[in-house]
Amino acid sequence: MFQAVPAEGPLDLFIQEHQMDYRRMTKEELKDEKKRLEKQYRDYQALGLKLDISRGKPCREQLDLSMGMLDVLDSDMEYLSENGLDTRNYGALTGLPETKRLMAHVMETQPENVIIFCDSSLNIMFDLVSKSWSHGVMGHTPWYRLPEVKFLCPVPGYDRHFAITEYFGIQMVNIPMKEDGPDMDLVRQYVENDESVKGIWCVPKYSNPTGTVYSDETVERFARLKPAAPDFRIYWDNAYNVHHLDFEHIRVIPELLELCRENGHPDMVYKFGSFSKISFSGSSIAALATSEENIADVVKTMGIQTIGHNKINQLLHTRFFKNAEGVMEHMKKHAAILKPKFDLVQKSLEEGLGGQSLATWSKPEGGYFVSFNTMPGCAKRVVALVKGAGVVMTGAGATYPYGKDEEDSNIRIAPTFASLSELEKALEIFCVCVKLASVEKFLNEG
Amino acid sequence: MFQAVPAEGPLDLFIQEHQMDYRRMTKEELKDEKKRLEKQYRDYQALGLKLDISRGKPCREQLDLSMGMLDVLDSDMEYLSENGLDTRNYGALTGLPETKRLMAHVMETQPENVIIFCDSSLNIMFDLVSKSWSHGVMGHTPWYRLPEVKFLCPVPGYDRHFAITEYFGIQMVNIPMKEDGPDMDLVRQYVENDESVKGIWCVPKYSNPTGTVYSDETVERFARLKPAAPDFRIYWDNAYNVHHLDFEHIRVIPELLELCRENGHPDMVYKFGSFSKISFSGSSIAALATSEENIADVVKTMGIQTIGHNKINQLLHTRFFKNAEGVMEHMKKHAAILKPKFDLVQKSLEEGLGGQSLATWSKPEGGYFVSFNTMPGCAKRVVALVKGAGVVMTGAGATYPYGKDEEDSNIRIAPTFASLSELEKALEIFCVCVKLASVEKFLNEG
Repeated sequence: MFQAVPAEGPLDLFIQEHQMDYRRMTKEELKDEKKRLEKQYRDYQALGLKLDISRGKPCREQLDLSMGMLDVLDSDMEYLSENGLDTRNYGALTGLPETKRLMAHVMETQPENVIIFCDSSLNIMFDLVSKSWSHGVMGHTPWYRLPEVKFLCPVPGYDRHFAITEYFGIQMVNIPMKEDGPDMDLVRQYVENDESVKGIWCVPKYSNPTGTVYSDETVERFARLKPAAPDFRIYWDNAYNVHHLDFEHIRVIPELLELCRENGHPDMVYKFGSFSKISFSGSSIAALATSEENIADVVKTMGIQTIGHNKINQLLHTRFFKNAEGVMEHMKKHAAILKPKFDLVQKSLEEGLGGQSLATWSKPEGGYFVSFNTMPGCAKRVVALVKGAGVVMTGAGATYPYGKDEEDSNIRIAPTFASLSELEKALEIFCVCVKLASVEKFLNEG
Repeated sequence: MFQAVPAEGPLDLFIQEHQMDYRRMTKEELKDEKKRLEKQYRDYQALGLKLDISRGKPCREQLDLSMGMLDVLDSDMEYLSENGLDTRNYGALTGLPETKRLMAHVMETQPENVIIFCDSSLNIMFDLVSKSWSHGVMGHTPWYRLPEVKFLCPVPGYDRHFAITEYFGIQMVNIPMKEDGPDMDLVRQYVENDESVKGIWCVPKYSNPTGTVYSDETVERFARLKPAAPDFRIYWDNAYNVHHLDFEHIRVIPELLELCRENGHPDMVYKFGSFSKISFSGSSIAALATSEENIADVVKTMGIQTIGHNKINQLLHTRFFKNAEGVMEHMKKHAAILKPKFDLVQKSLEEGLGGQSLATWSKPEGGYFVSFNTMPGCAKRVVALVKGAGVVMTGAGATYPYGKDEEDSNIRIAPTFASLSELEKALEIFCVCVKLASVEKFLNEG
């Protein structure tokens, strides 16, 4: 996933002129370079920019794609669901049948394995961890009564996942991400030998932030796990399941729910899906897909929490997208908007930093992020520098549990929200800041 | 609130003919009456009816009132909120400013005291109890660490409130409801002397199920409470705030949030509001209104749970209802549909049971329920009997914590969902079943 930094990149003359190997520079040369970069930096500051490449938010053009959804509903609409239920009234705790079918198609499972929720899949995850903590999983000891509860956290990962487990005082264990997913030897060692390990956070496709797609072997090894804890669950956040950048070359990964069943552990996985980056972010529908036994367990609590979720919105989504094919056609339109942005990130980083061995970065085939690694000890400085020039990025360290990136190296780039010209400018500044922080490091270590 | 059963009711000749004082009957007369009622009952059974007066659900005509809301949104709509936010994207964790203003008007408070949630106010209550249990209120000890936590429960009350506190193992203490609200001497005694008392469930207006409107004195006594526990909170579920049956004679109650502030306890109340019985049940918006300090406390957890709630739906509601006056005009249309149903309940009960001292019932001026009390020991039998004749009612005992009505007397009648003719038939059957259960009781007690 991480590209090897090319010895000889396709750099144009201007770039080559300024490409210098900091490692071979004398202290004086480094000082000159620092002055030159600081001058550039001050020039950027003088522009008084306000750019934001911090969060995985769709841009306006992407949101425009779903405006037609708002024409689906009007006062003459058929408000009965296919089973004759008045969607405007209470009822259907687990969702409308047609919406379950749509979501099951998108999530590659069966309608009876799906519960439809409101707009936030994050909230489903929070509620599951909360319920496990306060009341336990399927009759097992509630986690608050245990001396220690651990979650495995492939790193770098998603800060909002880590925030949930931190909130409940769950000890988070870093698991290095590799080219094909989390280090499965380590995962297996923990899960099969440590009963206090109750879960693992996974984004199996176009992982946040690395863009990693778990290999077949990785997914199969997940399904073959024999957990020490009977209440161990894989939190399989398939947030970017259909969020490809290149529809000609889609990476398909095995379906874990079915694989777990085949391997005799049908209850081992909670799968999450969401339309938040398909239709309207924060106003869509989200879902949990899991075994019938897990569903029965979850519904017990749901029935105390609510009478039911927004079924008008379920109807809206179901009638607009119709089926998985409808979703795929829609996602192609997203890709048409997003691919140029991701291409620009690669071009800008390569032009600004290629061939200098100062950084590595991911080249995702989908999802919402590019993961960037500075030399150790530079990430915080880079994010502070870009901020000083008016560019907001996700805080360095945020991609690690407790915000602690021991290497101080990982930075998440979120290129979707900004326009192409804003993105270009932000990355230009970013590259200068990476170079400046690197020079500073060489000088300090000098 | 409960009407005295009139010694001489306005009963027509037919009714008078059959009005018999079971208390003065001989055993033989009672047996004959029982046979007569059983014959009637079997005739009803033979009809094979399926009627439901169990839950507080709006009827189709009520839901039709809000269909115009669905025309508010279309693909040409202005999707920016008044502060320029793109409502289709992430953001605005606590809600859109215009929606806060609308909800604040309806909830008689200020926008800065309001957080807008998704569709379920029940879910807000659940989350507040859950958070208090796992993490505590404003830095106080989480309830799970305490040897005992109690909630006061005015009875009869709302089963879904009780289900939440039962779920978290919170001990529920019955507080008798009086004409003007809960027994405030008892409430005060508990709240001011028992540090384990952390909350009280209240439906201050058209209380579920009694229809009670708390008196000014009751509300003021709430505001003057000096709780032993610093984390004691009043759960003020103003679910029926604008749900009047007679708009000529609206009962206004004092606003508790402001009263608590004046009395030096600004943080003592969580107020809840919902549009579920204004627009679409389960697909509307709900809100918490509370002090700025409580809001800050709650938002800390919210920020972990979700990125934000459905803002498209917020926009939809705000643009359709516009302001509190718009809501009031809309509620008058609801009342026009509901008042004949509530009138029919009074007429049917009076015709079927008036003057017989077998039961008392409430005569609410708003809300969704009529509370009915049989003679002690008859409620379960009545609900079983009506079920046998095809009429579903809320389970007897459901209006008490743990489902335990020691008197076995209270039954909740929910007349809103059924049509007038269904309602009439259901009540006819209900009255016969009440009489039959009463005769059985007299016979058993010899």
